[in-house]
Amino acid sequence: MDFNELEQRYKNELLNRVVPFWLNKSQDLEFGGYFSCLDRKGNVFDTDKFIWLQAREVWLFSMLYNKVEKKQEWLDCALHGGEFLKKYGHDGNYNWFFSLNRAGNPLVQPYNIFSYTFAAMAFAQLGLASGNAEYNDIARKTFDRILERQDNPKGKYNKAYPGTRNLKNFALPMIMCNLALEMEHTLGAEAVEKTAKSVMHEVLNVFYRPELGLVVENVNADGSFSDTFDGRLLNPGHAIEAMWFIMDLGVRFNQPEAVAKAEKIMHQMLEYGWDKKYGGIFYFMDAKGHPTQQLEWDQKLWWVHIETLISLLKSIQLTGSEKSLEWFERVHDYTWSHFTDEQHPEWFGYLNRQGEVLLDLKGGKWKGCFHVPRGLYQCWQTLVKLAEK
Amino acid sequence: MDFNELEQRYKNELLNRVVPFWLNKSQDLEFGGYFSCLDRKGNVFDTDKFIWLQAREVWLFSMLYNKVEKKQEWLDCALHGGEFLKKYGHDGNYNWFFSLNRAGNPLVQPYNIFSYTFAAMAFAQLGLASGNAEYNDIARKTFDRILERQDNPKGKYNKAYPGTRNLKNFALPMIMCNLALEMEHTLGAEAVEKTAKSVMHEVLNVFYRPELGLVVENVNADGSFSDTFDGRLLNPGHAIEAMWFIMDLGVRFNQPEAVAKAEKIMHQMLEYGWDKKYGGIFYFMDAKGHPTQQLEWDQKLWWVHIETLISLLKSIQLTGSEKSLEWFERVHDYTWSHFTDEQHPEWFGYLNRQGEVLLDLKGGKWKGCFHVPRGLYQCWQTLVKLAEK
Repeated sequence: MDFNELEQRYKNELLNRVVPFWLNKSQDLEFGGYFSCLDRKGNVFDTDKFIWLQAREVWLFSMLYNKVEKKQEWLDCALHGGEFLKKYGHDGNYNWFFSLNRAGNPLVQPYNIFSYTFAAMAFAQLGLASGNAEYNDIARKTFDRILERQDNPKGKYNKAYPGTRNLKNFALPMIMCNLALEMEHTLGAEAVEKTAKSVMHEVLNVFYRPELGLVVENVNADGSFSDTFDGRLLNPGHAIEAMWFIMDLGVRFNQPEAVAKAEKIMHQMLEYGWDKKYGGIFYFMDAKGHPTQQLEWDQKLWWVHIETLISLLKSIQLTGSEKSLEWFERVHDYTWSHFTDEQHPEWFGYLNRQGEVLLDLKGGKWKGCFHVPRGLYQCWQTLVKLAEK
Repeated sequence: MDFNELEQRYKNELLNRVVPFWLNKSQDLEFGGYFSCLDRKGNVFDTDKFIWLQAREVWLFSMLYNKVEKKQEWLDCALHGGEFLKKYGHDGNYNWFFSLNRAGNPLVQPYNIFSYTFAAMAFAQLGLASGNAEYNDIARKTFDRILERQDNPKGKYNKAYPGTRNLKNFALPMIMCNLALEMEHTLGAEAVEKTAKSVMHEVLNVFYRPELGLVVENVNADGSFSDTFDGRLLNPGHAIEAMWFIMDLGVRFNQPEAVAKAEKIMHQMLEYGWDKKYGGIFYFMDAKGHPTQQLEWDQKLWWVHIETLISLLKSIQLTGSEKSLEWFERVHDYTWSHFTDEQHPEWFGYLNRQGEVLLDLKGGKWKGCFHVPRGLYQCWQTLVKLAEK
């Protein structure tokens, strides 16, 4: 593969097509914050504001400012969302709502812990970009709320009857792997090391089930496999995304054995999750091959594919894995030939099993200014290192 | 159409294929209640017990006993589930859990009002079948709980922030249309008339939006259209199913104008919801043509199609509508050629847009012993009347 050519391709797509799309189309200049529900051409089709996506866009523009170039319009765009979030996004005590209406009035209560994790990421990165200590303070206070809530993330909205089947879910430790490194400058090395050690163990030794060779989305509270709908549930893209978080932590804490295990798990999830008939990676599967409860199980989602490309490139860069190189070519070809839109910038998000566009939105309730630009940035940077070799 | 031949077809499918499937495959002889997660051949692939489906199977076998034939095995099967539900299904005060594990221990709290509505239906019908007044008493007490909760059905699990956007949902008045008639023998004519009048108004004049010509799933508390994801949401099968409940009420209360309006709405929902490219009725749509939040929007579901057949036949029988006859031929052909399984009894539940089987289960978390046999029974009975004409 020509890493120089690829590097340019990922960089150009990021800086000349995707970033301008969000910069120009998403900012709500009247009420603040961002629109995320944008149709194929970037026109707003709904004005609700989802905290996940508000926070992720603050993070993305702050990150670009911190890592790519000190462009004032990027910082301004990040501050535009940061100020809206600071004012309307939480209940006064850094409990983050799930969604707001256009004007910033809360629509959905703070039931979702990931609103908190993305707010913490956003304000830590914005603090770094702006030099404004208030933002770092919001990030730290939000991180405290996450630690308080991590044993019962849904709080009073938890509908599980206590005691019958106590499961723990993969998503929080998975996100914490990323958040730990994201927040090192605010939390300090000691706190990060403590968090990182615990969440790496959870991901690699608890949610990874060696008897299946797979990462499951839920396990019993004692760490054992649960032969139930939730316990058998696989989300290959989710597990594969976690593997690049683990590789980053493996590099940071000098643990090559963690990198090697993450690479092995990634290959196994790819083998299991790849659609041999139509190509692409399935959204949900059952570890025993039973029907899933998720009707969208066979769809091909943008984030699954771009996150996989990041993990594969990091693996190639860190270990030179031939298997990862082969997989990268396959997933890269599928991704660029199915998710990109030649007519209008930003990528499609949702394809059916056959690879046809299912919803032609560029942003919605769950797709915003995040996975595509973050993924293009991560791939670009890793390709730079590969090209230098 | 040859109504005599059709009548035999629906009857045979019900009595010789579908009913024996559930009778033989679903009863849990060890722990009580029913398995609903059955694969294509009827083998159990998960043992969780969902109250919706437990109650609906009690109702179905009670109804068959009451209306088709006094078969002891049908009554026994209904009692088998009824006793399990009575013992394990609620919290002691007729607040019905959402799901239980195989042994009957609660898994999910009583957050879902439809667990209550199906329990009320089940025990009212079982009371009639068994002559046991205790079951009627459970039905009445459950009905009281529904009335108490109808203004905030999710109770403390409601995540909507109060005041910003107060919506009301179509599903409860829609189900109450059916429940009112189902419970007439337990509640008395006066209570039924009062409930029926109110819910018919909600369905025909509030959730039906004349400016759109469509029934929406949610409206503002004041009855106006909400131009939001929830307010624009359409579920054509849901609206069309409600139309046969309305037709039944129209007959019961001698309101031909309600029957005529239900017929008109049904035709409009069918025109909007029919997939002109691949056939079949879409699962979810947006009233303004925007992308839906529901990723499964384009799938073809069994209950949507069989409920539509019921509504169409009732319309043909009550008014002789030529349009309904044309639609019936189209939907009947699609349904029988796509959902039925020549190899093994019971129907497939979930097809992709193209009409291919998406999940080959015969029962799961949401599909049980209900829509197929109820639909076959309703169609059969209406065809008997049509054949007699």
